[in-house]
Amino acid sequence: MTLVVGVDIGGTKTSAGLVDSSGTLLAVRTLPTPAAQGPAAVLDTAGGLVAEVASEAGDVTAVGVGSAGVVDPRRGVIVSATGAITGWAGTDLRGEVSRRLGLPVAVGNDVHAHALGEQWRGAAAGYADVLLVAVGTGIGASVVLGGRVLRGAHSVAGHAGHVPAVAAAGRPCPCGGHGHVEAVASGPAMLAEYRARAAAAVTGPSGVPGPSGVTGPAAVPGLADVARLAAQGDRIAVSVLTGGAAALGSTIGGLMNVIDPEVVVVGGGVAACGELWWQALREGIAAEVLPALREVPVGPAALGGDAALLGAARMALEMAG
Amino acid sequence: MTLVVGVDIGGTKTSAGLVDSSGTLLAVRTLPTPAAQGPAAVLDTAGGLVAEVASEAGDVTAVGVGSAGVVDPRRGVIVSATGAITGWAGTDLRGEVSRRLGLPVAVGNDVHAHALGEQWRGAAAGYADVLLVAVGTGIGASVVLGGRVLRGAHSVAGHAGHVPAVAAAGRPCPCGGHGHVEAVASGPAMLAEYRARAAAAVTGPSGVPGPSGVTGPAAVPGLADVARLAAQGDRIAVSVLTGGAAALGSTIGGLMNVIDPEVVVVGGGVAACGELWWQALREGIAAEVLPALREVPVGPAALGGDAALLGAARMALEMAG
Repeated sequence: MTLVVGVDIGGTKTSAGLVDSSGTLLAVRTLPTPAAQGPAAVLDTAGGLVAEVASEAGDVTAVGVGSAGVVDPRRGVIVSATGAITGWAGTDLRGEVSRRLGLPVAVGNDVHAHALGEQWRGAAAGYADVLLVAVGTGIGASVVLGGRVLRGAHSVAGHAGHVPAVAAAGRPCPCGGHGHVEAVASGPAMLAEYRARAAAAVTGPSGVPGPSGVTGPAAVPGLADVARLAAQGDRIAVSVLTGGAAALGSTIGGLMNVIDPEVVVVGGGVAACGELWWQALREGIAAEVLPALREVPVGPAALGGDAALLGAARMALEMAG
Repeated sequence: MTLVVGVDIGGTKTSAGLVDSSGTLLAVRTLPTPAAQGPAAVLDTAGGLVAEVASEAGDVTAVGVGSAGVVDPRRGVIVSATGAITGWAGTDLRGEVSRRLGLPVAVGNDVHAHALGEQWRGAAAGYADVLLVAVGTGIGASVVLGGRVLRGAHSVAGHAGHVPAVAAAGRPCPCGGHGHVEAVASGPAMLAEYRARAAAAVTGPSGVPGPSGVTGPAAVPGLADVARLAAQGDRIAVSVLTGGAAALGSTIGGLMNVIDPEVVVVGGGVAACGELWWQALREGIAAEVLPALREVPVGPAALGGDAALLGAARMALEMAG
């Protein structure tokens, strides 16, 4: 059976997985991404992880790499990227990984890899036309049509976080624009909104201290805590979480009317925020979709962090023929 | 050279055109659509028009029909439709046209046909990945990927009028939903908005008659008049026209971030509203698109009403092989 290695390079961590041609993940290694040290250090880390998992197999045929940023799969380079990895834009990802390992390398965007993984072995298995939305630090999507990921004319396709949303009107977006759904529905956006509202509730709008016993922003280090507070009935946490989910649902519903997928799969860290978040997401979708799309299944991604590894492995297998 | 007939069935008129395999339109016949008389009358009219233009040629190979509504090209039927043609939903379009003419028939949605026509011989010629938006009574789009129209899993793809828009928040949409861009940027939506605002300006918000000489709503029978008034500097007309165009531009920009087309083509009656409308549309797009998409060309459709005829003919040619 053909063996390949899938690699997932993110701003926080880098993973490599040994995968066989049936889509079974045989071994995984993960290390923090040395993002501040620049491309050479990141590529060395990725190369080392591949060598490690490959050493457990007799014969690895190819390597697939999914990376954050806009990736040109034809030229093999990072076209553009946010500041998550210092100096990442312009990196010859395919050339550098191939040089380090002496193996053929396929590259692509990490959200596209995520979708390929879910479509191969996860929540979208058996569907040809899929809208996969990943919600975490940012919001990205991947449109799978006839089993193939839509890359777009400039390798930009799938930037669903940068669609105008009513709830985000006027808010600055990480892309430099304004009013996009990412500015209100991403993890950091909801966390910042919770902290601001909770701080206002504690101190009062005029700076006067509020009643003691109100949960202050210092007690909320992360979005998981907001989700926990929401599940316990905290009014602000419920409002922020359902507001973000409803905005994202509205965007997804509008995109469904244009793309008309068989199934919608939602993954990423924010999708783990619990039933309140999911219910608001589903209601947001239902309010927008045309009657013919009311029965389209919408559900969670199934593979978690393994999806991008499997999808990257799939890219390698497709290239290897 | 192979000859086919393309048919465009709309709520107002039906046209048939004799087209050769190079995409030259050799003859056209048009009649009002007997929309209130139901499917049989509409199909008889279409069949008669085909017979007329076909009589000018020796040998017609096939017929392609583009129709308003959701059309299933595999089964050949109208899946659903607005009330523009009485009883149109459920019509066996392919079967009925084929029975009347004794020729093989391909069917599809009229906006999809419009896009195929523009991509074959019009403003999108030479491009493989196209976002075509048609703005008239409604707003529809057609996504062409690799030269093929995206039909979607339920033949619904391209309903870009039913994407949430900030400027449309709360407004009822013809689809039964609320807040979609069609509710603020279609021809009827802008005309109604102009009439309401002009009436308020004439009578004053409290019903008191305004100063004489202000253009009243009775003087504005159609959107072309609003466009003319806007070009003359009428404050309300400018505001309504640029507001609708900016909202549509915002929606198109968001869709570009997800679909990543090579080119955007905008057609339909509203696209004839002049430079003020186009400038606001371009500014709306520019405010949303990611940096990598800033240079994507955006321009008017080139074929007018012929686009859907040529696209329908193209469907026939593709079916005929």
